[in-house]
Amino acid sequence: MMKIFVPAANCQIKEDACAYIDQLTKPPGSLGRLEQFAAELAGMTGNLFPEVTPPGVLVFAADHGVVVEGVSAYPAEVTAQMVYNFARGGAAINVFSRRIGALLEIVDVGVAVPIDNERVIGKKVRRGTDNFAKTEAMTPAEAEQALHVGYEQAVSIIGQGARTLIAGEMGIGNTTAASALLATLTDEPLERIVGKGTGIAAERLVHKQEVIRQALALHRPDPAKPLEWLAKIGGLEIAAMAGAMLAAAERRIPILLDGFICTVAALVARQFAPNVADYMIAGHRSEEPGHGIALGLLGKEPLIDLRMRLGEGSGAAVAFPLLAAAAAMVSEMATFSSAGVSTAEAKGEKER
Amino acid sequence: MMKIFVPAANCQIKEDACAYIDQLTKPPGSLGRLEQFAAELAGMTGNLFPEVTPPGVLVFAADHGVVVEGVSAYPAEVTAQMVYNFARGGAAINVFSRRIGALLEIVDVGVAVPIDNERVIGKKVRRGTDNFAKTEAMTPAEAEQALHVGYEQAVSIIGQGARTLIAGEMGIGNTTAASALLATLTDEPLERIVGKGTGIAAERLVHKQEVIRQALALHRPDPAKPLEWLAKIGGLEIAAMAGAMLAAAERRIPILLDGFICTVAALVARQFAPNVADYMIAGHRSEEPGHGIALGLLGKEPLIDLRMRLGEGSGAAVAFPLLAAAAAMVSEMATFSSAGVSTAEAKGEKER
Repeated sequence: MMKIFVPAANCQIKEDACAYIDQLTKPPGSLGRLEQFAAELAGMTGNLFPEVTPPGVLVFAADHGVVVEGVSAYPAEVTAQMVYNFARGGAAINVFSRRIGALLEIVDVGVAVPIDNERVIGKKVRRGTDNFAKTEAMTPAEAEQALHVGYEQAVSIIGQGARTLIAGEMGIGNTTAASALLATLTDEPLERIVGKGTGIAAERLVHKQEVIRQALALHRPDPAKPLEWLAKIGGLEIAAMAGAMLAAAERRIPILLDGFICTVAALVARQFAPNVADYMIAGHRSEEPGHGIALGLLGKEPLIDLRMRLGEGSGAAVAFPLLAAAAAMVSEMATFSSAGVSTAEAKGEKER
Repeated sequence: MMKIFVPAANCQIKEDACAYIDQLTKPPGSLGRLEQFAAELAGMTGNLFPEVTPPGVLVFAADHGVVVEGVSAYPAEVTAQMVYNFARGGAAINVFSRRIGALLEIVDVGVAVPIDNERVIGKKVRRGTDNFAKTEAMTPAEAEQALHVGYEQAVSIIGQGARTLIAGEMGIGNTTAASALLATLTDEPLERIVGKGTGIAAERLVHKQEVIRQALALHRPDPAKPLEWLAKIGGLEIAAMAGAMLAAAERRIPILLDGFICTVAALVARQFAPNVADYMIAGHRSEEPGHGIALGLLGKEPLIDLRMRLGEGSGAAVAFPLLAAAAAMVSEMATFSSAGVSTAEAKGEKER
């Protein structure tokens, strides 16, 4: 296993940031959670005036053998079709990445069919996972390789200048794998983790829960042995996202989380290095019911709640401007003294 | 009273937009409220591919005579000091306006002291309102003049290219006037409208409620006669914001609402032309407790909830990128047929 060292966030700089933010020309606390996020960014980056732009968006694509069990409404071929859509710039994550001036890279870490496109980074570890309802999804060595692909891609995009990491995914069947991973981290029943939030028909939902239940009984995966845990369930893109997050946190680069799959990948990353959670901000709350459980395990409250459930990194990309606004607030606003503005008349009062 | 004609939003184009959005390369409904906002923008603008950029931000500043009653923690001089801070570019609304590429104009519609700055548009109707706890805040003719200032400034900024209107404000004491206006539109008790959300000390909060209670008993203001209603309570900047919204709606320009004061101004505008609410999208939910009541009266659910309570238009400016993302989604995403992506296998299922 590769060596990863993630430092804890810097509490002192976070406190300094809070004190400085109270001097800006606004009633103390009146920018609400933007103030909190700005202070957190300072603690993550070690910089009182954190820079989050440009963000780097990595979309990892891979297939899931479990799709043969009939757990998804979309055929597996959609994974590859969407990868070509990403390459042409027509998907939601392309649109939202352009709006936020993001560096965007599409990485094939395990699509079932060959992908031949110069805009797609070919890092296929294997052609999709095996069906984890019957057998292990991959070997621990393959899981580590996928983790390493994510790690290396994050190092690369940070080297190109990315100051925030957004990890996205495309993989038909990956809510099944993510639900199974999450189920091993919590006592919540599968009925609360695997929802019909995405619009799947009720019969198929029950079937999907049953597939996961049987798979967990078969493998008895143990999150305390994270490589084996990942190998038993998958997926390749989830491992790659976790690896990318580890690389970002190691470099004190803030991580803006997307929805359900991404937040489960964040929990995977935390199994390898607990401090990695210090560098995470939750972008949005997904409609997928397991997402609330995953966010609760991470202790994160998301920036936005627009009932999105697309994945690809789209929720994080849509939320990113709020994080950028928080950072700009600290760098660009005047202080009461620099602007010659009077402060509140009475101590303890904050109203305009 | 000036003649204003606000057409209803176009339901047919809104429906067409919903049908088109379902063809984009994503599971139907998976972009959640972004899809809903995109459809509403289509109905407002009459354009299936609405353009919301650049936004135009108008910040109206004015003083409130009621401040002598001791209803605010900040001295009245802060209104003028903040106007100069706006002119220098150091306030929150400057920072957030730059981030979203907004046209930004600062308008003195009634600051108590002379403002001499080339970056401030001088349209002073009078030097602040009178103290509405003792007498009418202004004459109906002055209220109409303030409304007209807002109307003309919106016409001007739309003429310069603004495709969304954000109306902001600065005026020490204006939560008191806004609370009084709102109290006449609802049966909710003053204790629920005038909160301590902004951090005011408990004793002063009770005093502020009492000042409003007595003023309402004195004036018995009637929202059905909107000019007299506005004249009795104020303020000049609230009237101007309402006028700006009327001009925007008349031109089918979407209005992105800020917090409590702005949403009360939206309710004022609706007293003049009910259809104006068709053109409004709520930007954020403020900490000020009356804001939830005002949003309820308008029937709007906000884009973000970050516990902000600053005003100036800051909440709307921070939320604007979400609206822009909704518009970009429609204009730029590929459809299933254009991208050659398979749709869901079974009718009624929407999951990836």
